[in-house]
Amino acid sequence: MRVKHKPWAKAFIDDNDDIFLTDTNFSKVNYFKNNNPIHIEVGIGKGAFIIEMAKQHPNINFIGIEMQASAIVMAGKKLVQEPLDNVKLYNKDLQSLSDYESLKNNIDVIYLNFSDPWPKKRHVKRRLTSEKFLDIYRELLSLEGRIEQKTDSDILFESSLVNYSQNKYVLESVILDLHNADIDNIMTEYEEKFSSKGFKIKKVIARPKE
Amino acid sequence: MRVKHKPWAKAFIDDNDDIFLTDTNFSKVNYFKNNNPIHIEVGIGKGAFIIEMAKQHPNINFIGIEMQASAIVMAGKKLVQEPLDNVKLYNKDLQSLSDYESLKNNIDVIYLNFSDPWPKKRHVKRRLTSEKFLDIYRELLSLEGRIEQKTDSDILFESSLVNYSQNKYVLESVILDLHNADIDNIMTEYEEKFSSKGFKIKKVIARPKE
Repeated sequence: MRVKHKPWAKAFIDDNDDIFLTDTNFSKVNYFKNNNPIHIEVGIGKGAFIIEMAKQHPNINFIGIEMQASAIVMAGKKLVQEPLDNVKLYNKDLQSLSDYESLKNNIDVIYLNFSDPWPKKRHVKRRLTSEKFLDIYRELLSLEGRIEQKTDSDILFESSLVNYSQNKYVLESVILDLHNADIDNIMTEYEEKFSSKGFKIKKVIARPKE
Repeated sequence: MRVKHKPWAKAFIDDNDDIFLTDTNFSKVNYFKNNNPIHIEVGIGKGAFIIEMAKQHPNINFIGIEMQASAIVMAGKKLVQEPLDNVKLYNKDLQSLSDYESLKNNIDVIYLNFSDPWPKKRHVKRRLTSEKFLDIYRELLSLEGRIEQKTDSDILFESSLVNYSQNKYVLESVILDLHNADIDNIMTEYEEKFSSKGFKIKKVIARPKE
């Protein structure tokens, strides 16, 4: 997602430490004041999906990760205007999130929505379903945890299916045309845009194998 | 594949026991007079794919299975007109092929081309990638063996990927639009027909896990 640079982004994040996760001493009870399950979205962009999910599921805690400060502050602004206790945002990379000891084996769902497909061969390791990232998700996911991935990209979907299968995940469901399937679905900004252009939206649910 | 009933089919098969596999004492050396690898196509229809493969790969032996006598005799007629030493046909179900002891763990590739998708829920067990059939393929496949499946059906492709993954197969490659990928491909009769109607042809290669 390309977004306009926002010089005020860093200060906004620092000023809103009730919304943005910064403390590696994070604990569920400190941050969310409850013991509800945690779902994570990796790459939230401007946050349309995670904020709508949080509204629809008040008994689930959501953490939204996005490395681009200029994008994540758009989600932050929405949460300032309309506060939601069950969403926290995180403006660092995924690797550093796995330093949060209390999150390990504690995440029930990881959402990957319209991740960058990195189509060039020399960039495949950057894909969010490359082996390195699948290992991090495994550390974070609970025993019954799962990854839910949506994309419009054939190339990303193809390699993701292969990578799950080759890295000790089991496919629970595969859907090649989500918008023509009879399934509940919350659209992201990307999804609306690409679907309206006629791209088929694909979805896979994968679980780590015991 | 719906084909016109041919009352002469049964007699044709009996008369051509050099082409049709009938003897459960089958051995590679008896039938093919060599020790080359064996590939099997399950559901050959009129045989366009397997006959073209056999022409292009004279050092591979092919066995084509098709339960419909009226379809398989069309392949048989082509082989009477233009004999090929490296193709044999089999007009029974797959289960009975696994009674051929000498084939077990001896097949390098199993092709599933445009198998009946059996879209209704009550028929899913009839799909050629249901658990029962994946178990038979596992018995037949060699250590380095693989399944190569092509289909135009979303519903069959989706469930096949899930079934491979859940039944101890690993996905080696997944292709969502074969005709726009840079890959060698021999078209079947079905494939030409459905591709010309604009359906995307999908392909998966799966291997049994050790």
